[in-house]
Amino acid sequence: MNNVPDDLACVVCSSNDFQQRGKSTTSMHSSQMTNPLHEDFLRRCVSIRVVVSDVDGTLTDGGMYYSAQGEAMKRFSAHDGMGVTLLQRSGIEVVLMTSDKTGISKARARKLGINRVLEDIGDKKTAINALAESLQVPLSAIAYIGDDVNDEAPLKLCGVSACPNDAVPLVQEWSQYICKSKGGHGAFREFAEMLLAVQVKSQNFTEQTM
Amino acid sequence: MNNVPDDLACVVCSSNDFQQRGKSTTSMHSSQMTNPLHEDFLRRCVSIRVVVSDVDGTLTDGGMYYSAQGEAMKRFSAHDGMGVTLLQRSGIEVVLMTSDKTGISKARARKLGINRVLEDIGDKKTAINALAESLQVPLSAIAYIGDDVNDEAPLKLCGVSACPNDAVPLVQEWSQYICKSKGGHGAFREFAEMLLAVQVKSQNFTEQTM
Amino acid sequence: MNNVPDDLACVVCSSNDFQQRGKSTTSMHSSQMTNPLHEDFLRRCVSIRVVVSDVDGTLTDGGMYYSAQGEAMKRFSAHDGMGVTLLQRSGIEVVLMTSDKTGISKARARKLGINRVLEDIGDKKTAINALAESLQVPLSAIAYIGDDVNDEAPLKLCGVSACPNDAVPLVQEWSQYICKSKGGHGAFREFAEMLLAVQVKSQNFTEQTM
Amino acid sequence: MNNVPDDLACVVCSSNDFQQRGKSTTSMHSSQMTNPLHEDFLRRCVSIRVVVSDVDGTLTDGGMYYSAQGEAMKRFSAHDGMGVTLLQRSGIEVVLMTSDKTGISKARARKLGINRVLEDIGDKKTAINALAESLQVPLSAIAYIGDDVNDEAPLKLCGVSACPNDAVPLVQEWSQYICKSKGGHGAFREFAEMLLAVQVKSQNFTEQTM
Repeated sequence: MNNVPDDLACVVCSSNDFQQRGKSTTSMHSSQMTNPLHEDFLRRCVSIRVVVSDVDGTLTDGGMYYSAQGEAMKRFSAHDGMGVTLLQRSGIEVVLMTSDKTGISKARARKLGINRVLEDIGDKKTAINALAESLQVPLSAIAYIGDDVNDEAPLKLCGVSACPNDAVPLVQEWSQYICKSKGGHGAFREFAEMLLAVQVKSQNFTEQTM
Repeated sequence: MNNVPDDLACVVCSSNDFQQRGKSTTSMHSSQMTNPLHEDFLRRCVSIRVVVSDVDGTLTDGGMYYSAQGEAMKRFSAHDGMGVTLLQRSGIEVVLMTSDKTGISKARARKLGINRVLEDIGDKKTAINALAESLQVPLSAIAYIGDDVNDEAPLKLCGVSACPNDAVPLVQEWSQYICKSKGGHGAFREFAEMLLAVQVKSQNFTEQTM
Repeated sequence: MNNVPDDLACVVCSSNDFQQRGKSTTSMHSSQMTNPLHEDFLRRCVSIRVVVSDVDGTLTDGGMYYSAQGEAMKRFSAHDGMGVTLLQRSGIEVVLMTSDKTGISKARARKLGINRVLEDIGDKKTAINALAESLQVPLSAIAYIGDDVNDEAPLKLCGVSACPNDAVPLVQEWSQYICKSKGGHGAFREFAEMLLAVQVKSQNFTEQTM
Repeated sequence: MNNVPDDLACVVCSSNDFQQRGKSTTSMHSSQMTNPLHEDFLRRCVSIRVVVSDVDGTLTDGGMYYSAQGEAMKRFSAHDGMGVTLLQRSGIEVVLMTSDKTGISKARARKLGINRVLEDIGDKKTAINALAESLQVPLSAIAYIGDDVNDEAPLKLCGVSACPNDAVPLVQEWSQYICKSKGGHGAFREFAEMLLAVQVKSQNFTEQTM
């Protein structure tokens, strides 16, 4: 723990003013700079190489637009799309995982250069483990963001877990990081920028001390 | 009335902090634990075996998306969809009842495994009575949620009545339970979870005392 | 003026708590019961036989959904639709007047039984006068609701003028009645119910004194 | 600087109550009437002959509606459309500049009589310089409004820069004028009316003193 710079914790917290909760029931605030759980969270963020996102309610506001033929459209956000791009430019892969099977998520992924879209996933526990094996990364290098009870397993298994501000209450309990933004309205962007801010800060620190 | 555990009333109220109104003009608050009307409401919830939901303004936010050809789409909510699934897993049937006849409600129902969709219903009084007879359940075992004046009869006839937070004022007067969430934005999910919380609590109590 | 019952003014104001402005620069509040302008507004409402509504920003929230082929959809409100129905049942004709020419307004009108849709109207001054002549009613029997600067003429010429809460500032100055609800989110319904409440109250008074 | 009438600054500020920030880190408020940066901003507005607008997040609320075939629709605003019309009537050309290449922006432009739509723009720095050359106007005669980090170059190069209220934080730092309205919900209209108010006031002053 003594390798974690106080400096890093302070900059990230004060500049982002994010809401963050520990794995325990103790909730975390930016004033709790010396809390070891909090430093643990930052360390976890530094290890992330893959970000996996749920779709409905996370990359969208949960709206599902139906015609008489079935689900016709979902509404995504330009700001969230830029969040995907910023992660990819930093060498972090973005993956979508959803129970949806309309092909709409794949269409959005194509636009954003997301190659891996896990659709029609009923059991996210099996899927997240298979993904880690397939990518040959430990679960601790994967961050997951989701908003509903079927996201329980990946939220609990991945190194970093997050949810939009309007996630259901149980998911908010399971998440280390609760975004200030809502699903489909900037939550993914906020999460992406927080991760990048921690990693850049961490990188600066490493460069300075090398 | 002496069979209703104080315990149940307290847990449900404090954990859900729901808004609930009696059939009389006296509105109910979670602080009024000893109010007999309130215990009556909980008892009513325990009896529910079927939940009937209006569509426009209840499972949607009332938005009707028109092209030049007529109504093309409605916007449903992923969170509300999970509410339907949670009820079904607990053995409670979910039914849709709407004056709409576009087929959009049926498309949403197919996705959620809802088999009974009563479309093009002009007279909801006749329809709710016919449904009870068809399902061979008393009206006291049916809960109804709706948001506008054409929902008057089922709201007044069913064992439990509810409405989204943005229902028209008259409907709010007719409803025992006014959701904190709006139509198409979690009202149905909230209502479903409230019903399940009361029933689970009730079941635990029954098991403990058997 | 001595024919206007105090009773009517009080009931309408207190039960609806509406925002209303006189034709002069003096704005009106429900506490100003004795203001002659206010009584004038109620008297104007009693004379209404036709309600003319703008479409974009009034019956919709101003959203225009475009595909690559042009405007594809508008979002209407179920609550506003019921407002149209309530007026029609009371014998008040509802007419749409819009600069739009996509046919979307006509599609919505068909669903609501609105027979008169004036589309592609560039000059609303000429159109409102022609409508009055065609219907053989004076402008004082027509109420108009609109939200943007091209609604200036009918707002100033009709007997009663109203706008959604999110109308542009100039339109709010020109309108006698500013709805608490926004365009496409209940403004039309609120306006319809206000008119009907005044007319019903007026009718009751007339019956009592006959 | 002594040519800038105090009168102009006061009227614009008090009537519009706009949020405006100088190019320096000092933010501007309407109470700072004597601030030279503020007068500089007004002078810049007077010089504008072309307004360039980003599309996603600026003329829309950032929502991108996807079907399984790709992006199907964007939601524009009727109020913003009127803002385009008001600028055009005053002889100011409106141009769209976007990284989007779906053709949706072109469809919206056709409706509004916007002839110049720069789609599929990856490098907005090159594009804004090429536009100025093509139109034979200096960058100081161009105003730019955008909401995300890819708008950095034109925001910094153009004579007047603005952003919707919900632009990302960096863009708010780069913008001289932060709208009170959100993207797709009146930001463009607000910006257009502010520019026109300054120019009309300026014109009145010029006429009076000629």
